[in-house]
Amino acid sequence: MSQDPKRAVILLSGGLDSTVTAAVARSDGFALYCLTIAYGQRHVVEVTRARAVAEALRVEEHRVTEVDLQGIGGSALTGHMAVPKDRGVGARTEGIPTTYVPARNMILLSLAFAYAEVCEARRIYFGANIVDYSGYPDCRPEFIRAFETVAKLGTRSGTMGKPTEILAPLLMLSKAEIVRRGFELNVPFHLTHSCYDPDQAGVACGRCDSCLIRREGFRQAGVVDPVPYAVP
Amino acid sequence: MSQDPKRAVILLSGGLDSTVTAAVARSDGFALYCLTIAYGQRHVVEVTRARAVAEALRVEEHRVTEVDLQGIGGSALTGHMAVPKDRGVGARTEGIPTTYVPARNMILLSLAFAYAEVCEARRIYFGANIVDYSGYPDCRPEFIRAFETVAKLGTRSGTMGKPTEILAPLLMLSKAEIVRRGFELNVPFHLTHSCYDPDQAGVACGRCDSCLIRREGFRQAGVVDPVPYAVP
Repeated sequence: MSQDPKRAVILLSGGLDSTVTAAVARSDGFALYCLTIAYGQRHVVEVTRARAVAEALRVEEHRVTEVDLQGIGGSALTGHMAVPKDRGVGARTEGIPTTYVPARNMILLSLAFAYAEVCEARRIYFGANIVDYSGYPDCRPEFIRAFETVAKLGTRSGTMGKPTEILAPLLMLSKAEIVRRGFELNVPFHLTHSCYDPDQAGVACGRCDSCLIRREGFRQAGVVDPVPYAVP
Repeated sequence: MSQDPKRAVILLSGGLDSTVTAAVARSDGFALYCLTIAYGQRHVVEVTRARAVAEALRVEEHRVTEVDLQGIGGSALTGHMAVPKDRGVGARTEGIPTTYVPARNMILLSLAFAYAEVCEARRIYFGANIVDYSGYPDCRPEFIRAFETVAKLGTRSGTMGKPTEILAPLLMLSKAEIVRRGFELNVPFHLTHSCYDPDQAGVACGRCDSCLIRREGFRQAGVVDPVPYAVP
């Protein structure tokens, strides 16, 4: 009587957004095939958290793949520039920040499509968000649509009439709305990691753009953030 | 009086096509920034050859970056299936071969765009070819054009009005024409590697699709292939 559930690939970084995205995919009835990319980011603790999140969400499969983006450089997140701290909303939303990783989402989505071909998933859940990160061009809806077109033309499954779609359920939500959605879905917030510049033990700095946005989001949502910060 | 030459990124695999492509870029007057991706391919000897080719072509910079595609699987080239041997032209041009690596060119081009952003290159030379490899969807011109659009929307340089273009100078050439073009440009053919399934010492098998196509190409071009083969 039972039927295999539909499969979805989730780009799971171990951060708040991708974890809520995975929970949304599960509540949509999909079996979760999670892909974590270790790309030489400063916040490599993310990968450890991604494993813990995948276990907590009882995913079908979790793969961790390495891509050496440090060898290419050009970003504060891969150790070539300083991570900005204590910036107000004005500075954060002006231009493209130094934490932009060149072509990062193109690389991550390409790998997600490769994995989707292998596990025959017709949908990729992608935790991109445009409200708090308007400076990143590779989070915009027109980029995501164009990427679907590329994949339709350039993959075996796409050219054989079985295209894979990208769903970005958090794209238009504020951080507070993301926290509320996660709260409703019982997301293991305590396992997630958002800081761009954690200390050796993996403790969040509390002062980078990502920490500031996360903390404001929890505050606005009226939910306690269970993650400890170096600066209260 | 001297002016910096324009910069181009070359996806240099160490194979015949990418090496001829690099030589074309140099003859077009570009300073060469070469990127080799070690993606867990069976023919990892390619990476060693890519270094030798880069040195012979006196490139400006050569970076080797690792991407663990073996962790994703799904291809004969990353060790998950057998490499087909001794196939005639008919079988070779029918459908998508098992040597197709899921989303490979999406991944390679994404990394090339990342590198182009870092070294401020406005052009990527890409050795794709459609004549001998018509089965690979990610070598088709419409895929390449769609990829330029994605990159224009998703990269810092693209959104700032400095898009990077993809040039595939070999796209419509036969293998014999590629060999002739390489011969005119003094390409170090002896350093290049094409075999999908070399032995431990890196000697080409002479029987996989890639070897068969290469050997026919040299024969038709009337040029001696200086590379040794396990099967004469």
